[in-house]
Order: sequence, then C-alpha cells, then structure tokens
Amino acid sequence: MTDTCVKDIPAHLGKEIRLKGWVRNIRHSGKLLFIIFRDGSGEVQAVAFKPDLGDDLFEQAKRLTLESSLIITGIPKQHQKLTGSYEISITGIEVVQYADEYPIGKKEHGPDFLLSNRHLWLRSSKQWAILRLRHAVYFAICNYLNDHGFFRFDSPILTPNACEGTTTLFELDYFDEGKAYLSQSGQLYLETGIMSLGRVYDFGPVFRAERSKTRKHLTEFWMMDAEAAYVEHDENMQIQEGLIRYVIRTVLDKCASELKILERDTERLRRADAPFKRMTHAEAVAFLQAKGSGITRHGDLGAQDEVTLTADSDVPVFVERWPKEIKAFYMKRDPANPDLVLGNDLLAPEGFGEIIGGSQREDDHDLLLSRMKAENMPIEPYQWFLDLRKYGSVPHSGFGIGLERLITWMSGIHHIRETIPFPRMIYRIYP
Amino acid sequence: MTDTCVKDIPAHLGKEIRLKGWVRNIRHSGKLLFIIFRDGSGEVQAVAFKPDLGDDLFEQAKRLTLESSLIITGIPKQHQKLTGSYEISITGIEVVQYADEYPIGKKEHGPDFLLSNRHLWLRSSKQWAILRLRHAVYFAICNYLNDHGFFRFDSPILTPNACEGTTTLFELDYFDEGKAYLSQSGQLYLETGIMSLGRVYDFGPVFRAERSKTRKHLTEFWMMDAEAAYVEHDENMQIQEGLIRYVIRTVLDKCASELKILERDTERLRRADAPFKRMTHAEAVAFLQAKGSGITRHGDLGAQDEVTLTADSDVPVFVERWPKEIKAFYMKRDPANPDLVLGNDLLAPEGFGEIIGGSQREDDHDLLLSRMKAENMPIEPYQWFLDLRKYGSVPHSGFGIGLERLITWMSGIHHIRETIPFPRMIYRIYP
Repeated sequence: MTDTCVKDIPAHLGKEIRLKGWVRNIRHSGKLLFIIFRDGSGEVQAVAFKPDLGDDLFEQAKRLTLESSLIITGIPKQHQKLTGSYEISITGIEVVQYADEYPIGKKEHGPDFLLSNRHLWLRSSKQWAILRLRHAVYFAICNYLNDHGFFRFDSPILTPNACEGTTTLFELDYFDEGKAYLSQSGQLYLETGIMSLGRVYDFGPVFRAERSKTRKHLTEFWMMDAEAAYVEHDENMQIQEGLIRYVIRTVLDKCASELKILERDTERLRRADAPFKRMTHAEAVAFLQAKGSGITRHGDLGAQDEVTLTADSDVPVFVERWPKEIKAFYMKRDPANPDLVLGNDLLAPEGFGEIIGGSQREDDHDLLLSRMKAENMPIEPYQWFLDLRKYGSVPHSGFGIGLERLITWMSGIHHIRETIPFPRMIYRIYP
Repeated sequence: MTDTCVKDIPAHLGKEIRLKGWVRNIRHSGKLLFIIFRDGSGEVQAVAFKPDLGDDLFEQAKRLTLESSLIITGIPKQHQKLTGSYEISITGIEVVQYADEYPIGKKEHGPDFLLSNRHLWLRSSKQWAILRLRHAVYFAICNYLNDHGFFRFDSPILTPNACEGTTTLFELDYFDEGKAYLSQSGQLYLETGIMSLGRVYDFGPVFRAERSKTRKHLTEFWMMDAEAAYVEHDENMQIQEGLIRYVIRTVLDKCASELKILERDTERLRRADAPFKRMTHAEAVAFLQAKGSGITRHGDLGAQDEVTLTADSDVPVFVERWPKEIKAFYMKRDPANPDLVLGNDLLAPEGFGEIIGGSQREDDHDLLLSRMKAENMPIEPYQWFLDLRKYGSVPHSGFGIGLERLITWMSGIHHIRETIPFPRMIYRIYP
C-alpha cells in the first residue's frame, strides 16, 4: 500500500493506494456509495460497494457529509467512460471528522456571504483553480526575470515618504520617528538596486487607500516592479512583451485543468502569444476620437477607451510616448518631443485594459529636480533618489505589473476579488 | 563586437566585447590605467594603455572618479597571475557620467552614516554579495517547497485581529471599518489554505512594533510560513530539516564567490548539511542547568541558552515538546503529556540560535476554544479560525522561517540590518 495523492494516481493504476482528503460530494444508490474525493492536488471519484466494506463501515461511510475529512484506501483504475479520468474502488475508509452542515451549498450565494465565508469558499473548485493559477503566474514572472539577469530586491513597505502623492496612503505611527506610510510601489527604491545588481525586481504587497469600488480595485494587492540599468525605452518594452508572452505560454502549459474549470477560452489566450501591437498616445487618441471618444490630446485613457482600444485585438497593445502632464515625475522626456515622456502602458486584449505601466526614467539630476519642483514635491525626503543621478547615473527603465489584474485577465473571471486569498476592499477586512 | 556582462566573460576570451557599468576603483601609473570595473553581474580589472587609446581619450579616462558610469570596449583574456580571473585590454571608453565625489570611501564609516547612505552603501562588494545570497536563499526555499507539493498562498498584511497579542502591532485606520493591524505572521490564514490546496506557504513582509534594539531584530522583515494538511509533528520536523539542508547545499553550490567576499567559513556551513540533532525541551533544560544556566523546567530559552546549546554543534538542533505555557495557543498538546505541546524550535549551529519555529496545530474545536478562553482571547474575531475545526478538521502542522535571520547565519555577518535592502528598525525609517 502506497500513500500518494490524487495527481499521482496514474502511476499507481491497479495497485492499492491510500489518499487523505475531504468529501467534495457524496451520493448513494443501494449498495453503492459514490464519493467525489479531493485532497488539494486534485479530485477523483471513489466508489464503495457495500459487500466489500461490510455493513458497519458502509453505514459509517453513508453518514459522511460535505467537506468531511477522511482517509480512503482503494484501487485506482481508468474511468470507464471518461478518458484521462480515473475511478477508485474503495477497500477501506477511515473517517477523520464528520463535518458540521457546510454553509456553502449548491444554491447561489451572494458575494457578501461568500466573502464573509472566504475561509471556506476557498475550497470550491473555481477558487482552487484560481489559487493554483496565481501560483503558476507568480513563478512564471519570477522565472522569466531570473533567466534574464534580474535579482530579487525587496523594497520596504514602511516608507517615510510617498511615491506618487499622499492622498491614497495608509498612515501609521512609527515609534518616535513620526508618521510612516505603507508603500504603493517599490519602484524608487529599486532604482538604488540597479546601481548594485544591474537588474532587480521586487514582488510584494502594496497598498492604496483609494475609495474606489470597482471590480478592478483592491486595497491590498501584489505588485511586481522591475528595473534595469542601461535599458532604454524600446528594450524596456521588449522585456515586458517577452515576459507576458512567457507567462501566457507557461499558464497554457501548466494550468490546462485549472483553465478548464474556469471555462477560460484558451484559444483567445493562445492567440495573445504573438507580436504585440504598438501605438503612440497620439495615435491612440486619434483612433479613439474617430470612434467617438471624448478623449483629448493631453488626456488619460478612460476605462471605456481601454476597452475600445483592445476589444478587437488578439494581442496586447502598447500605448507609448505620453503627454508628460499625465504621467509620473520620474519618467524621461522623449528626446524627439519634450512635451512627451518615454512611458508605456500595456493593455491586455479582449477589452480587458491595463496590465503593465512602465517607462524609461529621467537620469539627469537637474531635469529631475526641476520636474519635482514644478510638481511642488518636497525635495529633502527624495534626496537619496536624487543622489542616484549624481554618482554614476545611467540610462535605465522599468515597469510594474499588478499580479491580481494579470490573473483576472488570464483566468477570464469577472471580479478581481477572487484572485487573492483574502481580498481587502473598502468595505471588507474580515476574515 | 558583442554586448555582454562580466559574468559571461569566459565565453568571449580573445574577442572584442562591450560592457556597461561603473568604476569600482581606478589608479594610473605612467601610460597605464587600471580600472576595477563592475556591472552588477561581477567585477573585472580593465587596463588601458595610453598609445592604444590616444592622448585625449586617455586623459578623459584618467579623470574618472569612483562610481562613475562608463561603457568600455576591450578584449578579455585570462589574468596572468590569478587563475579563474580575467583582465580586459581596453580598446575604447565612453564616459556616461563623471560621478561627484563619492561619500563612501575607503576609511571606516560608522553604522549610522552607512545606514543613512544605504542607497549608496548597497553598491559595496559585501552588500552586493549579501543581496545576491538573499536572492539565492529566497528561491532555494521556494523551489524546495514547490517540489514538495506546496503552493504559494499569500496571506493578507492588513488584518482585523492579532495573531499573538496586540502590544507589538502597528495599527492604522481602515476606511470606515475601524482599526486594522499589520500582520505579524500569516500562519492562521494559511490554515484555511491547506483545506483547499493541501500544502501552502506564504513568503512576504511581516511587522513587529517591538522596541527591541538588538542585532537580531528588524521592525519589518520577510517571513516564510508553511502549513500542510495531514502532516504530524515528526514529519513536520523532517520537512524543516530537508528544507534547511537543501538551502545550505544550494547556497554552497551557487554562491561560492559571494561567500568568499563575505569571508564565510564554508567548511562549517558544509558540516551543517548532516542529520540534525533532536532534544526535548526537558533534555535541553537539564543540559543547560548542568552548564550553569538559570533556566527553569517551564522556562523559555534565553539568548545565552541558545548559544550554549549550539556552540559546539556542527549541525542545527531541534528543541521539541515544549511546556504549553510558553508557546502559542494553537499548538497541539502532546498526547503523551498534556502539559506539553508538539512544538519545535530549530537552532542554527555556531551559537547562532533560532531560525525556525514550528508545531503541529490543535485540530480539536473544543480544546482549541478552551485554550483561547484560558488565554482571555476574544472569540468572535477568530470564529473563522475555529470554523476550520468544524468542517473537515485534519491533523496538520507548519513552521515559519525568518528570512533575514537565516541569511544572517548563512552569510556569517554580525548584524541582521545588512540582510535586507532597506532595514527598518526602531530609530531608522530613512531612506
């Protein structure tokens, strides 16, 4: 008898195995009992036949409720009808715990009920699939970056100053040192790391105290910021494209069963793994105005504009060279047009919208300082950031990916709140 | 001409290459100029010969200061004296920026000066080596867990309640929902994840608002918590041992040059990759009392006790089966002795002290509840945690590793503050 798990069943066909897990579902019919058994690695149907188990054990097994924990022994074989599926003939059952009546049933529950029971909701097939997809996407990003010379460089969460404005920051008391703020992005800190390691990234939680209540906003979410020395605007976009295409291929390769549970149109995902489109902000504005958008020449893209730009595209779309007024102070001016900056957004197709923001960074000390003064930023808290332009400044670029938005697109689900184990939103901090 | 980086020089011997980086050091002697060149991937000596460069360029190069940024072209060859080292004959130099006089020189600086200039200090060889070691340790932990059936499960940072007490928590206002606290550990949340995925871990920043000022404390540090369903106390320790031994092997294998820069005694590290010692808390107390410690039968290990227990050990030491009074409420009672819990600490050798804390968890609803009441804990905020014992409770165990303590031990450095890019301590939140 071998202890194993559902995913490894194909290696044990015809031999007795032991599995430890939970009852996803159960029904009986005369002398037969059908258990949909799950153990974290997967799901399998297990069938008990009364004469094999004996009366007592069969009756014990019949009393199993949804989500009860149990250990089964049995012999796995190919499913009679479904190729690629297996079925287990149960030889023994050990009940670990009869579960109380499980609050999440087959009827439809509202989102508030499910979110209040998030600690249990996580067990449902769809949530299981999303969590596993999240794992795959997380490591696809890391592996691509590690293979391209990047090193992890964990930027701090507790910061004395704000990256972009202070209105959407969570604030707290830091011992006797005054106020501290939860980081919204590690980018500025990453710029110190490239001077040591060449290419770096962080990948951790960030926080936005925005009173936004949309299906694309979380208060706490995971962000990957990458930064590379001696990389300019075009190469920066090449890295972004290479990374996203690698993530798509990895997910299609490793998460076939998860994408099936999520009913994701994988053909559309597959088509996105082709050369990305590129347009300037000016071209995007012209395109959108022709389609009836009210966007102006210096305007940011609205949510509907992002849909319009990508609804008919098979592949993600870069929008680059933005008016400097609507982008962050640290973006480098376009040498060809000082009204523009060398920034890019990357919009996912299918009308999804932004998944990456990136730019080449201003590497000239005096230009950066004048830009900060023009935006009425305090200089002293950013002295360390300005220092980077005094001691061996180099051309450099970077970009950031919000993990949950990327997963929302790739999984094809409706609301971002399902992409993180315990979502934090304006009205939600429990459990 | 090939664009490459210092670490890939061996593949280009005798051919002209281009490297982009910074001046680590520079000196000249007559018609020769010696530059210690670094580019993030490594360091190499580059030599310019005046007749080759021409007078103008040679004079420009002579003016290069420490940390100036530059692009060199040249031909790499084996170093004449040092095997495994290379030297570049410079054919061209492009100065990117002459650096201002670099504030970190060759003289000794105090820690406060270095910490205030952390954004620059990160470039020094030793800091570079620690950062790369951190990257290696981080992914060694992930890879081991991923290969053993664990999935990432990011627990929340913003929490409505405290894991262990509230005196050392950072507190903030969460919209209209009242107070929120920064997480000290994701462990309780991970226990929800095992019911879905079987085995899970998180790996992110945690926060302790402790007024501790020792060389082993950070306010913000990175913690890996792992949790596994159907894993009991002994197997839990086996997983910990397997993981730490894998990390040791990986670091010895991948970080030879970093360990050399850090002057780490690698032989001692190598000897730690052997079966770990195990002793009960009672055995540890007896041993320590015999050595003169004032520790009592129900006492926690003091810092000096941890030194005494491991100073003469080649391998890490497990101390297990602790008095329940000094361990957390969620630890499972020892079936052989209800005064004890199935918890373990793992102490690194060389007198270093704790690197892991772990335990089997209490899986019985009523026992857990009575334990919480005995500790005067509020019940309602933990209702979700108690629920896990109602709906398919299973035996389960887990453990936590503080990344920075592990790195401090493995790198052999004195103070934990150097193991994280921007350390946060009681008197330090800048830069």
